[in-house]
Amino acid sequence: MNTHYHSDTIVALSTPQGVGAIGVIRLSGADAVAIVQRVFKGKDLRQQQSHTLHFGYLMQDDKVLDEVVVSLFLAPSSYTKENVVEISCHGSPYIQQKIIELLIDQGARPAKPGEFTLRAFLNGRFDLSQAEAVADLIASDSQAAHQIAMQQMRGGISQKLKELRTALIEFAALIELELDFGEEDVEFADRSKLHTLLHQIVSELNTLIQSFQYGNAIKNGIQVAIVGKPNAGKSTLLNALLREERAIVSDIAGTTRDTIEETLTIDGLLFRFIDTAGLRETGDVIEKIGVEKSREKIRQADIVIFLYDHCEETAEQLQSELSIIPPDKKCIIAANKTDICPERTVPATLNGIAVVALSAKKHDGLETLKKELTGMVLDGNVSANNTIITNQRHYESLQQSLKAVQEVITKLHDQIPADLVAQDIRVALRHLGNITGEIDTDKDILATIFSKFCIGK
Amino acid sequence: MNTHYHSDTIVALSTPQGVGAIGVIRLSGADAVAIVQRVFKGKDLRQQQSHTLHFGYLMQDDKVLDEVVVSLFLAPSSYTKENVVEISCHGSPYIQQKIIELLIDQGARPAKPGEFTLRAFLNGRFDLSQAEAVADLIASDSQAAHQIAMQQMRGGISQKLKELRTALIEFAALIELELDFGEEDVEFADRSKLHTLLHQIVSELNTLIQSFQYGNAIKNGIQVAIVGKPNAGKSTLLNALLREERAIVSDIAGTTRDTIEETLTIDGLLFRFIDTAGLRETGDVIEKIGVEKSREKIRQADIVIFLYDHCEETAEQLQSELSIIPPDKKCIIAANKTDICPERTVPATLNGIAVVALSAKKHDGLETLKKELTGMVLDGNVSANNTIITNQRHYESLQQSLKAVQEVITKLHDQIPADLVAQDIRVALRHLGNITGEIDTDKDILATIFSKFCIGK
Repeated sequence: MNTHYHSDTIVALSTPQGVGAIGVIRLSGADAVAIVQRVFKGKDLRQQQSHTLHFGYLMQDDKVLDEVVVSLFLAPSSYTKENVVEISCHGSPYIQQKIIELLIDQGARPAKPGEFTLRAFLNGRFDLSQAEAVADLIASDSQAAHQIAMQQMRGGISQKLKELRTALIEFAALIELELDFGEEDVEFADRSKLHTLLHQIVSELNTLIQSFQYGNAIKNGIQVAIVGKPNAGKSTLLNALLREERAIVSDIAGTTRDTIEETLTIDGLLFRFIDTAGLRETGDVIEKIGVEKSREKIRQADIVIFLYDHCEETAEQLQSELSIIPPDKKCIIAANKTDICPERTVPATLNGIAVVALSAKKHDGLETLKKELTGMVLDGNVSANNTIITNQRHYESLQQSLKAVQEVITKLHDQIPADLVAQDIRVALRHLGNITGEIDTDKDILATIFSKFCIGK
Repeated sequence: MNTHYHSDTIVALSTPQGVGAIGVIRLSGADAVAIVQRVFKGKDLRQQQSHTLHFGYLMQDDKVLDEVVVSLFLAPSSYTKENVVEISCHGSPYIQQKIIELLIDQGARPAKPGEFTLRAFLNGRFDLSQAEAVADLIASDSQAAHQIAMQQMRGGISQKLKELRTALIEFAALIELELDFGEEDVEFADRSKLHTLLHQIVSELNTLIQSFQYGNAIKNGIQVAIVGKPNAGKSTLLNALLREERAIVSDIAGTTRDTIEETLTIDGLLFRFIDTAGLRETGDVIEKIGVEKSREKIRQADIVIFLYDHCEETAEQLQSELSIIPPDKKCIIAANKTDICPERTVPATLNGIAVVALSAKKHDGLETLKKELTGMVLDGNVSANNTIITNQRHYESLQQSLKAVQEVITKLHDQIPADLVAQDIRVALRHLGNITGEIDTDKDILATIFSKFCIGK
């Protein structure tokens, strides 16, 4: 796996498509330097050292196609551990296409999505979980998602899994010992040690598996539904939350925000508001759609904000309305319009759920509401240093691994012979190995993983 | 002008916005290296040589913000002739924004559009016409536009104008001579030489000015209108032209084509079809709109394709229909559906305009039609080595310069004293100098020119 896997040279545009100041075209492969040299007018690139930059001209039929700067990264000191050449050219899609065509004429081949990172993995730059983190890092759009992806890319999961694998291998060794000395009654002495080790492994696996719900929410954004009767003030609340947030978004040129969906970043966590299509209009258009629609929104949501008009609704009315929220759903109740009837007391809780006093119109109570939102996400979850699982594939492998370890526990309990138990340990190890790609990974799985990457990465 | 004009350090994203494999953030200014060093974990960048690449980490509050590769270009060996640092980071808009914020915290300032190129100009890397060509190069979307922009960027216009300025200065010297010796009757000996020189200058200016129509069409695409009666086959013709073209467009990953407008590149020339909104649908929807609409389309067009049904229309009918085309408009007449009535002869010309025999349905005659189209653009225009004006500002300055030179001719003819003539020569020189920015250019003019650039260039 750690030997160089490919020999052909691949090429792709690595910067986003479209018109810009510059674009970068990347090549990787044994012939990368030679291929570029054939169309480059400037120094002889083949004579240059790694990690150097060279101004020159790309020539096509004796005409200058572009003035470029060429970056050289010679094997193994490159991203892919192969020879890598990056061509910084003018940011014209026309020119970029022509340069790529030129390089293909000279023997390069168009790279598939993620193929540079695939090569980096195959050539041993990092393991599979780290390779996957590269895509997560590129897609990260909040501080929390960024931190988790960065931690994973820098080997956070790899390290954790190494510890688990070591523990499992230690356990396997103890089982082997029992196998060897089975006839000599060493069994009971080891069993308690085995059990301690096993339960430690189960506990670690469970922690990782449980982190997925949080990790997945971080990565994809936490889905929030605002529900409540017409005129409860849902659109006012959404607008108030968004306006506060927009005001602190720095408007540095060259950055944009996704405006298709209503999103809000609080303390580095990305919240996505579900089905706000009508809410941003002042008319609360979608409120007419009624209870069925609300149930659907609640079902999709990670967190529900249940908003009510504090001046109009009684505790009794609310009891029945709140029945729409399933008991296991994370929910914040917000008593709105407190500015209109300051004489009425806001209950501390309703149905055992804490109530936030709010005036969306006056922007009162928004900070408390935001703290509740972030608190619900972080609740029970983890200091920043914990390993968080964000990847469905990892999650499933961990579950498979846990299942095998639980099988070990059952078999030990049932006094099943140790050689049969050893089989399950191997299964558990294989599933952990799948995550980092330490064992030979199926070609199709690799293809699936890397097909989700950008081209050029 | 050739001294370093700015001292603060600017920063911007130089690659297109959006998610991609990588993004490049560029800094320029005396402190560029020092600013990056403050947040960089890796080698001490201040100790490194120009044109070297350095892997390392960008740190924010002791956390890794990104793994990056830093390119160093030390003054004066950089695009701007100042210290330039380029940071190649992961292609996440979130990360890019955070990096730019970090660098601004460390003392950089967000760059204005085109500010890197403005500095390159102010620091004497190239003249103003070359700086403007950088923007044209980035915007170029056909071979011809690319070639003209590249020629201009590499000093094509600069060289031509230098020759003209030299000729004008030579002329001024001759006038001065006459001034000095005016009392001694050297006048008539010099006058013929003066006239020859003047007419040469006028001729050169005229050639440049006339090239603008062509240059402008190349740069922006040549507008083509297809007009004709309903059922003449306009949509079939458009589809046939586009289908042929699309088939030869290489579908290299990482390149896209603008599909909002119907465009066609023939022999490196970009043709834009006017108002084809309905034509691509099979129903010829817009044909109902009638004569007024056609007149409007013809007015906008650089070239009109007048299409008629060869089997249905007689020469007499066509005479009156053709009256819609103004006599000075470039027009191709195409006799369509020749496959249906092969027995009818296609006239060689109609109203003195050559007729192309066509079957849009069978793709017959398309090559001839394309040759006619490119021929009309290239007609009378220019070998590839001629200097072509594509810039409105240059065009206007050349006209002003020509006006001043013509004033010189008038004054010489009217025996106006040489010192008054010398004034007009200075005006002509000033206008030429405006193009290259050799004379002090108005700050507002510079601001206007560079505001049209991308940020990060």
